[in-house]
Amino acid sequence: MSKGAIDFYFEFSSPFGYLASELIETVANRHAVEINWQPFLLGAVFKVTGGSPLVNKPLKGDYSQRDMRRSARLHGIPFNWPEKFPVFPVPSCRAVYWTKANHPEKTADLVHALYRGAWGTGRSVWETGTVIDIAEETGIDRNEVEAGIGDPAIKESLKTATDEAIERGVFGSPFFIYRDEPFWGVDRLDHLDKWIATGGW
Amino acid sequence: MSKGAIDFYFEFSSPFGYLASELIETVANRHAVEINWQPFLLGAVFKVTGGSPLVNKPLKGDYSQRDMRRSARLHGIPFNWPEKFPVFPVPSCRAVYWTKANHPEKTADLVHALYRGAWGTGRSVWETGTVIDIAEETGIDRNEVEAGIGDPAIKESLKTATDEAIERGVFGSPFFIYRDEPFWGVDRLDHLDKWIATGGW
Repeated sequence: MSKGAIDFYFEFSSPFGYLASELIETVANRHAVEINWQPFLLGAVFKVTGGSPLVNKPLKGDYSQRDMRRSARLHGIPFNWPEKFPVFPVPSCRAVYWTKANHPEKTADLVHALYRGAWGTGRSVWETGTVIDIAEETGIDRNEVEAGIGDPAIKESLKTATDEAIERGVFGSPFFIYRDEPFWGVDRLDHLDKWIATGGW
Repeated sequence: MSKGAIDFYFEFSSPFGYLASELIETVANRHAVEINWQPFLLGAVFKVTGGSPLVNKPLKGDYSQRDMRRSARLHGIPFNWPEKFPVFPVPSCRAVYWTKANHPEKTADLVHALYRGAWGTGRSVWETGTVIDIAEETGIDRNEVEAGIGDPAIKESLKTATDEAIERGVFGSPFFIYRDEPFWGVDRLDHLDKWIATGGW
Protein backbone atom coordinates (compact mmCIF):
# COMPACT_ATOMS: atom_id res chain seq x y z
CA MET A 1 0.00 0.00 0.00
CA SER A 2 1.22 3.47 -0.82
CA LYS A 3 2.28 5.50 2.18
CA GLY A 4 0.53 8.50 0.66
CA ALA A 5 1.48 12.12 0.97
CA ILE A 6 1.95 14.86 3.51
CA ASP A 7 -0.30 17.81 2.71
CA PHE A 8 1.97 20.70 3.65
CA TYR A 9 0.08 23.98 4.11
CA PHE A 10 2.22 27.09 4.38
CA GLU A 11 2.09 30.85 3.95
CA PHE A 12 5.06 32.64 2.37
CA SER A 13 4.90 35.32 5.11
CA SER A 14 5.36 32.71 7.81
CA PRO A 15 8.91 32.40 9.18
CA PHE A 16 8.09 29.07 10.80
CA GLY A 17 6.63 27.95 7.47
CA TYR A 18 10.01 28.75 5.93
CA LEU A 19 11.84 26.71 8.57
CA ALA A 20 9.42 23.83 8.00
CA SER A 21 10.02 23.99 4.24
CA GLU A 22 13.71 23.42 4.91
CA LEU A 23 13.11 20.47 7.23
CA ILE A 24 10.12 18.57 5.86
CA GLU A 25 11.92 16.71 3.09
CA THR A 26 14.10 14.90 5.61
CA VAL A 27 10.94 13.51 7.20
CA ALA A 28 9.22 12.72 3.91
CA ASN A 29 12.27 11.05 2.40
CA ARG A 30 12.84 8.91 5.48
CA HIS A 31 9.44 7.30 4.92
CA ALA A 32 9.29 7.61 1.13
CA VAL A 33 6.12 9.68 1.25
CA GLU A 34 5.33 12.51 -1.15
CA ILE A 35 4.90 16.16 -0.18
CA ASN A 36 1.89 18.03 -1.50
CA TRP A 37 3.03 21.68 -1.41
CA GLN A 38 -0.01 23.82 -0.60
CA PRO A 39 0.69 27.54 -0.17
CA PHE A 40 -2.34 29.44 1.13
CA LEU A 41 -3.32 32.90 2.33
CA LEU A 42 -3.19 33.17 6.11
CA GLY A 43 -5.00 36.52 5.99
CA ALA A 44 -8.12 34.76 4.73
CA VAL A 45 -7.84 32.23 7.55
CA PHE A 46 -7.42 34.97 10.17
CA LYS A 47 -10.69 36.51 8.98
CA VAL A 48 -12.41 33.26 10.00
CA THR A 49 -10.49 32.52 13.18
CA GLY A 50 -9.90 36.04 14.50
CA GLY A 51 -6.18 35.23 14.55
CA SER A 52 -3.43 37.79 14.02
CA PRO A 53 0.23 37.65 13.05
CA LEU A 54 2.34 36.21 15.83
CA VAL A 55 4.94 38.97 15.76
CA ASN A 56 2.32 41.64 16.54
CA LYS A 57 1.32 40.13 19.87
CA PRO A 58 2.48 41.71 23.15
CA LEU A 59 5.39 39.79 24.75
CA LYS A 60 4.73 36.79 22.51
CA GLY A 61 5.86 38.76 19.47
CA ASP A 62 9.27 39.57 20.95
CA TYR A 63 9.74 36.03 22.12
CA SER A 64 8.70 34.57 18.79
CA GLN A 65 11.29 36.69 16.98
CA ARG A 66 13.97 35.34 19.29
CA ASP A 67 12.68 31.80 19.02
CA MET A 68 12.56 31.72 15.23
CA ARG A 69 16.11 33.05 14.91
CA ARG A 70 17.34 30.59 17.53
CA SER A 71 15.55 27.73 15.73
CA ALA A 72 17.09 28.77 12.41
CA ARG A 73 20.60 28.85 13.92
CA LEU A 74 20.08 25.45 15.51
CA HIS A 75 19.34 23.95 12.09
CA GLY A 76 21.90 26.04 10.19
CA ILE A 77 19.21 27.74 8.09
CA PRO A 78 19.98 31.27 6.81
CA PHE A 79 17.42 33.64 8.31
CA ASN A 80 16.95 37.33 7.65
CA TRP A 81 13.84 39.35 8.27
CA PRO A 82 12.36 40.60 4.97
CA GLU A 83 12.57 44.29 4.21
CA LYS A 84 8.80 44.30 3.79
CA PHE A 85 6.60 42.33 6.17
CA PRO A 86 4.14 40.71 5.87
CA VAL A 87 5.48 39.44 2.57
CA PHE A 88 2.62 39.88 0.05
CA PRO A 89 2.33 36.20 -0.90
CA VAL A 90 -0.11 36.22 -3.81
CA PRO A 91 2.29 36.17 -6.81
CA SER A 92 4.42 33.48 -5.15
CA CYS A 93 1.38 31.31 -4.42
CA ARG A 94 0.06 31.65 -7.96
CA ALA A 95 3.46 30.79 -9.42
CA VAL A 96 3.48 27.64 -7.30
CA TYR A 97 -0.02 26.56 -8.36
CA TRP A 98 0.80 27.20 -12.00
CA THR A 99 3.97 25.13 -11.63
CA LYS A 100 2.13 22.28 -9.87
CA ALA A 101 -0.27 22.14 -12.81
CA ASN A 102 2.33 22.44 -15.57
CA HIS A 103 5.74 21.35 -14.30
CA PRO A 104 5.03 19.43 -11.08
CA GLU A 105 8.58 18.12 -10.92
CA LYS A 106 9.80 21.70 -10.37
CA THR A 107 7.37 22.54 -7.55
CA ALA A 108 9.69 21.81 -4.63
CA ASP A 109 12.56 23.73 -6.19
CA LEU A 110 10.33 26.74 -6.78
CA VAL A 111 8.95 26.74 -3.23
CA HIS A 112 12.49 26.60 -1.85
CA ALA A 113 13.70 29.36 -4.14
CA LEU A 114 10.81 31.65 -3.22
CA TYR A 115 11.00 30.98 0.52
CA ARG A 116 14.79 31.37 0.57
CA GLY A 117 14.39 34.56 -1.42
CA ALA A 118 11.94 35.93 1.14
CA TRP A 119 13.61 34.78 4.36
CA GLY A 120 17.21 34.08 3.46
CA THR A 121 18.60 36.29 0.77
CA GLY A 122 16.45 39.42 0.90
CA ARG A 123 14.68 39.19 -2.46
CA SER A 124 11.60 41.37 -2.96
CA VAL A 125 9.25 38.43 -3.45
CA TRP A 126 6.20 40.65 -2.89
CA GLU A 127 6.81 41.94 -6.43
CA THR A 128 5.58 39.84 -9.32
CA GLY A 129 8.72 40.67 -11.32
CA THR A 130 10.95 39.16 -8.66
CA VAL A 131 8.80 36.03 -8.48
CA ILE A 132 9.18 35.64 -12.24
CA ASP A 133 12.97 36.12 -11.96
CA ILE A 134 13.15 33.47 -9.26
CA ALA A 135 10.99 31.07 -11.30
CA GLU A 136 13.31 31.58 -14.26
CA GLU A 137 16.32 30.84 -12.06
CA THR A 138 14.75 27.47 -11.22
CA GLY A 139 14.44 26.62 -14.89
CA ILE A 140 10.91 27.77 -15.61
CA ASP A 141 10.14 29.85 -18.70
CA ARG A 142 9.51 33.42 -17.56
CA ASN A 143 6.86 34.21 -20.14
CA GLU A 144 4.91 31.09 -19.34
CA VAL A 145 4.96 31.66 -15.59
CA GLU A 146 4.04 35.31 -16.04
CA ALA A 147 0.98 34.28 -18.04
CA GLY A 148 0.22 31.64 -15.40
CA ILE A 149 0.30 34.17 -12.56
CA GLY A 150 -2.31 36.21 -14.41
CA ASP A 151 -4.48 33.24 -15.43
CA PRO A 152 -7.97 33.31 -13.86
CA ALA A 153 -7.92 29.51 -13.42
CA ILE A 154 -4.72 29.78 -11.36
CA LYS A 155 -6.17 32.62 -9.28
CA GLU A 156 -9.08 30.27 -8.61
CA SER A 157 -6.70 27.44 -7.62
CA LEU A 158 -5.27 29.61 -4.86
CA LYS A 159 -8.70 30.60 -3.63
CA THR A 160 -9.83 26.96 -3.66
CA ALA A 161 -6.71 25.85 -1.80
CA THR A 162 -7.24 28.48 0.88
CA ASP A 163 -10.93 27.60 1.29
CA GLU A 164 -10.06 23.93 1.49
CA ALA A 165 -7.39 24.65 4.11
CA ILE A 166 -9.98 26.40 6.28
CA GLU A 167 -12.44 23.52 5.80
CA ARG A 168 -9.77 21.08 6.93
CA GLY A 169 -9.12 23.09 10.11
CA VAL A 170 -5.86 24.73 9.08
CA PHE A 171 -5.51 27.84 11.25
CA GLY A 172 -1.80 28.59 11.04
CA SER A 173 1.43 28.00 9.16
CA PRO A 174 3.09 25.57 8.88
CA PHE A 175 0.38 22.92 9.05
CA PHE A 176 0.71 19.29 8.00
CA ILE A 177 -2.03 16.75 7.37
CA TYR A 178 -1.13 13.12 6.91
CA ARG A 179 -4.02 10.69 6.36
CA ASP A 180 -6.44 13.13 8.04
CA GLU A 181 -4.21 13.58 11.07
CA PRO A 182 -3.36 17.27 11.59
CA PHE A 183 -0.07 18.64 12.92
CA TRP A 184 0.54 22.35 13.48
CA GLY A 185 3.93 24.00 13.78
CA VAL A 186 7.47 23.21 12.78
CA ASP A 187 7.95 21.80 16.28
CA ARG A 188 5.44 19.05 15.46
CA LEU A 189 7.57 17.58 12.66
CA ASP A 190 8.86 15.06 15.19
CA HIS A 191 5.32 13.88 15.96
CA LEU A 192 4.50 13.72 12.24
CA ASP A 193 7.66 11.70 11.72
CA LYS A 194 6.70 9.19 14.44
CA TRP A 195 3.10 9.10 13.19
CA ILE A 196 4.15 8.08 9.69
CA ALA A 197 6.60 5.52 11.07
CA THR A 198 4.16 3.90 13.48
CA GLY A 199 0.76 4.48 11.88
CA GLY A 200 -0.30 6.53 14.88
CA TRP A 201 -0.79 5.99 18.59
CA MET B 1 30.65 26.93 38.46
CA SER B 2 27.14 25.85 39.32
CA LYS B 3 24.95 25.06 36.36
CA GLY B 4 22.15 27.01 38.06
CA ALA B 5 18.45 26.41 37.80
CA ILE B 6 15.61 26.28 35.34
CA ASP B 7 12.89 28.74 36.34
CA PHE B 8 9.78 26.78 35.42
CA TYR B 9 6.68 28.97 35.14
CA PHE B 10 3.38 27.14 34.92
CA GLU B 11 -0.34 27.57 35.47
CA PHE B 12 -2.35 24.74 37.02
CA SER B 13 -5.08 25.23 34.40
CA SER B 14 -2.61 24.63 31.59
CA PRO B 15 -2.68 21.13 30.09
CA PHE B 16 0.66 21.70 28.39
CA GLY B 17 2.04 22.93 31.73
CA TYR B 18 0.99 19.57 33.17
CA LEU B 19 2.75 17.68 30.40
CA ALA B 20 5.86 19.81 30.95
CA SER B 21 5.78 19.09 34.68
CA GLU B 22 5.98 15.39 33.85
CA LEU B 23 8.89 15.81 31.46
CA ILE B 24 11.09 18.58 32.87
CA GLU B 25 12.88 16.51 35.50
CA THR B 26 14.38 14.27 32.84
CA VAL B 27 16.01 17.35 31.31
CA ALA B 28 17.07 18.87 34.63
CA ASN B 29 18.51 15.62 35.97
CA ARG B 30 20.48 14.96 32.81
CA HIS B 31 22.41 18.18 33.42
CA ALA B 32 22.23 18.22 37.23
CA VAL B 33 20.46 21.58 37.28
CA GLU B 34 17.79 22.52 39.79
CA ILE B 35 14.17 23.32 38.98
CA ASN B 36 12.62 26.44 40.48
CA TRP B 37 8.88 25.62 40.46
CA GLN B 38 6.99 28.87 39.85
CA PRO B 39 3.22 28.54 39.53
CA PHE B 40 1.56 31.76 38.40
CA LEU B 41 -1.84 33.09 37.36
CA LEU B 42 -2.24 33.12 33.60
CA GLY B 43 -5.41 35.21 33.89
CA ALA B 44 -3.33 38.13 35.19
CA VAL B 45 -0.93 37.72 32.26
CA PHE B 46 -3.77 37.64 29.72
CA LYS B 47 -4.96 41.01 31.11
CA VAL B 48 -1.62 42.47 30.02
CA THR B 49 -1.18 40.61 26.75
CA GLY B 50 -4.78 40.37 25.55
CA GLY B 51 -4.29 36.60 25.33
CA SER B 52 -7.07 34.08 25.86
CA PRO B 53 -7.22 30.38 26.70
CA LEU B 54 -6.06 28.25 23.80
CA VAL B 55 -9.03 25.91 23.91
CA ASN B 56 -11.52 28.75 23.32
CA LYS B 57 -10.01 29.74 19.96
CA PRO B 58 -11.80 28.85 16.71
CA LEU B 59 -10.20 25.84 14.94
CA LYS B 60 -7.08 26.16 17.11
CA GLY B 61 -9.06 25.10 20.16
CA ASP B 62 -10.23 21.83 18.60
CA TYR B 63 -6.77 21.10 17.27
CA SER B 64 -5.11 21.86 20.59
CA GLN B 65 -7.41 19.42 22.39
CA ARG B 66 -6.39 16.72 19.95
CA ASP B 67 -2.72 17.69 20.12
CA MET B 68 -2.51 17.65 23.92
CA ARG B 69 -4.15 14.22 24.16
CA ARG B 70 -1.91 12.88 21.41
CA SER B 71 1.16 14.33 23.16
CA ALA B 72 0.10 12.77 26.47
CA ARG B 73 -0.35 9.36 24.84
CA LEU B 74 3.03 9.63 23.16
CA HIS B 75 4.70 10.09 26.53
CA GLY B 76 2.44 7.68 28.41
CA ILE B 77 1.08 10.41 30.67
CA PRO B 78 -2.47 9.92 32.05
CA PHE B 79 -4.65 12.73 30.73
CA ASN B 80 -8.27 13.49 31.52
CA TRP B 81 -10.01 16.81 31.08
CA PRO B 82 -11.01 18.26 34.49
CA GLU B 83 -14.69 18.35 35.38
CA LYS B 84 -14.34 22.09 35.91
CA PHE B 85 -12.25 24.19 33.54
CA PRO B 86 -10.40 26.46 33.87
CA VAL B 87 -9.15 24.93 37.07
CA PHE B 88 -9.27 27.71 39.69
CA PRO B 89 -5.55 27.64 40.51
CA VAL B 90 -5.25 29.96 43.50
CA PRO B 91 -5.32 27.46 46.41
CA SER B 92 -2.87 25.16 44.59
CA CYS B 93 -0.47 28.02 43.89
CA ARG B 94 -0.56 29.24 47.47
CA ALA B 95 0.02 25.72 48.80
CA VAL B 96 3.10 25.49 46.56
CA TYR B 97 4.54 28.84 47.70
CA TRP B 98 3.94 27.94 51.34
CA THR B 99 5.69 24.60 50.78
CA LYS B 100 8.62 26.25 48.98
CA ALA B 101 9.09 28.51 52.00
CA ASN B 102 8.64 25.85 54.67
CA HIS B 103 9.39 22.40 53.24
CA PRO B 104 11.23 23.06 49.97
CA GLU B 105 12.21 19.40 49.63
CA LYS B 106 8.51 18.56 49.21
CA THR B 107 7.82 21.14 46.49
CA ALA B 108 8.25 18.88 43.46
CA ASP B 109 6.12 16.13 45.01
CA LEU B 110 3.34 18.60 45.77
CA VAL B 111 3.37 20.10 42.27
CA HIS B 112 3.14 16.63 40.76
CA ALA B 113 0.35 15.57 43.12
CA LEU B 114 -1.71 18.70 42.38
CA TYR B 115 -1.16 18.57 38.62
CA ARG B 116 -1.92 14.84 38.45
CA GLY B 117 -4.98 15.45 40.57
CA ALA B 118 -6.21 18.11 38.17
CA TRP B 119 -5.32 16.47 34.84
CA GLY B 120 -4.89 12.79 35.57
CA THR B 121 -7.14 11.50 38.32
CA GLY B 122 -10.07 13.91 38.36
CA ARG B 123 -9.58 15.54 41.75
CA SER B 124 -11.46 18.80 42.44
CA VAL B 125 -8.31 20.85 42.92
CA TRP B 126 -10.28 24.10 42.53
CA GLU B 127 -11.48 23.47 46.10
CA THR B 128 -9.19 24.42 48.97
CA GLY B 129 -10.24 21.28 50.90
CA THR B 130 -9.01 19.03 48.07
CA VAL B 131 -5.72 20.90 47.86
CA ILE B 132 -5.23 20.35 51.58
CA ASP B 133 -6.06 16.63 51.19
CA ILE B 134 -3.51 16.31 48.40
CA ALA B 135 -0.87 18.16 50.42
CA GLU B 136 -1.48 15.79 53.32
CA GLU B 137 -1.09 12.80 51.00
CA THR B 138 2.37 14.11 50.07
CA GLY B 139 3.38 14.19 53.74
CA ILE B 140 2.56 17.80 54.61
CA ASP B 141 0.65 18.61 57.80
CA ARG B 142 -2.87 19.62 56.80
CA ASN B 143 -3.35 22.22 59.52
CA GLU B 144 -0.07 23.91 58.66
CA VAL B 145 -0.76 24.06 54.93
CA GLU B 146 -4.31 25.29 55.55
CA ALA B 147 -2.94 28.16 57.64
CA GLY B 148 -0.33 28.77 54.92
CA ILE B 149 -2.95 29.03 52.16
CA GLY B 150 -4.69 31.75 54.18
CA ASP B 151 -1.51 33.60 55.15
CA PRO B 152 -1.31 37.15 53.71
CA ALA B 153 2.45 36.78 53.12
CA ILE B 154 1.83 33.69 50.98
CA LYS B 155 -0.92 35.45 49.05
CA GLU B 156 1.64 38.17 48.40
CA SER B 157 4.22 35.60 47.22
CA LEU B 158 1.85 34.47 44.49
CA LYS B 159 1.12 38.03 43.43
CA THR B 160 4.85 38.82 43.34
CA ALA B 161 5.62 35.68 41.35
CA THR B 162 2.95 36.54 38.78
CA ASP B 163 4.15 40.16 38.49
CA GLU B 164 7.73 38.96 38.11
CA ALA B 165 6.69 36.47 35.44
CA ILE B 166 5.11 39.28 33.40
CA GLU B 167 8.20 41.46 33.87
CA ARG B 168 10.35 38.63 32.56
CA GLY B 169 8.21 38.28 29.45
CA VAL B 170 6.31 35.15 30.42
CA PHE B 171 3.13 35.15 28.34
CA GLY B 172 2.04 31.52 28.46
CA SER B 173 2.38 28.18 30.19
CA PRO B 174 4.66 26.31 30.34
CA PHE B 175 7.53 28.77 30.17
CA PHE B 176 11.16 28.08 31.07
CA ILE B 177 13.95 30.56 31.71
CA TYR B 178 17.52 29.30 31.98
CA ARG B 179 20.20 31.95 32.53
CA ASP B 180 17.94 34.64 31.03
CA GLU B 181 17.19 32.56 27.94
CA PRO B 182 13.42 32.08 27.53
CA PHE B 183 11.73 28.97 26.15
CA TRP B 184 7.96 28.70 25.70
CA GLY B 185 5.99 25.51 25.38
CA VAL B 186 6.47 21.87 26.21
CA ASP B 187 7.74 21.42 22.65
CA ARG B 188 10.74 23.62 23.46
CA LEU B 189 12.08 21.27 26.13
CA ASP B 190 14.40 19.85 23.46
CA HIS B 191 15.87 23.29 22.76
CA LEU B 192 16.22 23.96 26.50
CA ASP B 193 17.97 20.62 26.85
CA LYS B 194 20.45 21.44 24.07
CA TRP B 195 20.92 24.98 25.42
CA ILE B 196 21.95 23.70 28.87
CA ALA B 197 24.22 21.10 27.30
CA THR B 198 25.99 23.46 24.93
CA GLY B 199 25.79 26.84 26.65
CA GLY B 200 23.73 28.17 23.75
CA TRP B 201 24.17 28.74 20.04
